[in-house]
Amino acid sequence: NNEVGTLQPIKEIAAVAHEKGILFHTDAVQAVGSIEIDVADMGIDMLSLSGHKLHAPKGVGALYLRKGINIKRLMYGGSQERGQRPGTENLASIVGLGAAVEKAACSLEERTGKIRNLRQRLEAEILCRVPGSYRNGPDDETERLPGILNISFDGVSGESLLLCLDMRGVAVSSGSACTAGSLEPSHVLMAMGMEEKKAQASIRYSLSDQNTLKDVEMAAEITADVVERLRAAIDQ
Amino acid sequence: NNEVGTLQPIKEIAAVAHEKGILFHTDAVQAVGSIEIDVADMGIDMLSLSGHKLHAPKGVGALYLRKGINIKRLMYGGSQERGQRPGTENLASIVGLGAAVEKAACSLEERTGKIRNLRQRLEAEILCRVPGSYRNGPDDETERLPGILNISFDGVSGESLLLCLDMRGVAVSSGSACTAGSLEPSHVLMAMGMEEKKAQASIRYSLSDQNTLKDVEMAAEITADVVERLRAAIDQ
Repeated sequence: NNEVGTLQPIKEIAAVAHEKGILFHTDAVQAVGSIEIDVADMGIDMLSLSGHKLHAPKGVGALYLRKGINIKRLMYGGSQERGQRPGTENLASIVGLGAAVEKAACSLEERTGKIRNLRQRLEAEILCRVPGSYRNGPDDETERLPGILNISFDGVSGESLLLCLDMRGVAVSSGSACTAGSLEPSHVLMAMGMEEKKAQASIRYSLSDQNTLKDVEMAAEITADVVERLRAAIDQ
Repeated sequence: NNEVGTLQPIKEIAAVAHEKGILFHTDAVQAVGSIEIDVADMGIDMLSLSGHKLHAPKGVGALYLRKGINIKRLMYGGSQERGQRPGTENLASIVGLGAAVEKAACSLEERTGKIRNLRQRLEAEILCRVPGSYRNGPDDETERLPGILNISFDGVSGESLLLCLDMRGVAVSSGSACTAGSLEPSHVLMAMGMEEKKAQASIRYSLSDQNTLKDVEMAAEITADVVERLRAAIDQ
């Protein structure tokens, strides 16, 4: 899941779909480059990935189609990309995506370990420094992405928190980029049974192997300071 | 027209469409950056343009929509680009397109003049050096794009010509990129009443203000040489 980092049991879901004769597609944008994915072993028929999650250029992605699968095209026109996506190709971005995927695949285990350590440190630091803060998503490391951390803070709004953190140099998300601009609480957190108010007080930290321990400590320190100030401002 | 450079009477076509209550869209990919376009004066409701024709990054484009026009979206998902085109934006390419359009607009008249001179020179050189070569498209300069030159050559195939020119460093097109890989003769030339064999013996030269007189002379010289060799090979 893109907002809280939960790993769904993809292999089992694919098996259920296949039992019923249904093809299985997975949105693996958050997973590719973070964890190992074996499309054959997992029974994935179609997989979407996006470049910006693994340091490829922003705005390029790929759709994996298992051999033999034909999908109905959404756009008609030129014969580019076998007619599935007409229009002049963004060659530089495509080459960049290929290079980024290759690089990510080479050192996946090492990177996963580094990112997990950083996230665990960030998580511990925030939960320790900020009273009334809660981590969302599964506890078990094997059921979550290493670099996604979703935290709720009592008594603040996620939007104010996001804006204040941004001004202090910490880039976080509230919900997903796809719902940016919407003031609705995260549909993911709501589906997880969270109250609307708490869902609106939740933000997502995303880590990569380009982050450092210093980044993480600074992010935790600034978060603690901003939450304290916001709570004080509300109390007045 | 993207293949022969004919300028259609856009203002008149838009007026006819509007008389019948029909919105008017123009594919101006080949025109933007080459000639002046005034969407309000011409009655253009929607206009498509593409970056690679004006030295912006390849693979980025834009759709102009007159204020108040709503179009049915083709893709659903995120709220990016007002929901019309969901997906993480290719920010670098978008900024590049903006910069390229700004630059093109600044020196349009000067560039148009330079490109026209280069094309006229290329045209004259090829028609003079190569017997059995014919220019396609209108004679009147006001009815054509300055930088597009479509020429038919008796007794050669466009495909062989294209491949040989490419090997000698001259990049030309046969038909349009959207029909690349297809062995059908150009639908544009066929619609203009050309015989299939002649249509298949036609190629397009595209010039920009980054070309030089030396480029043009070299392209004409190489074309003459390649056509001569191809004809000799067929005769044997």
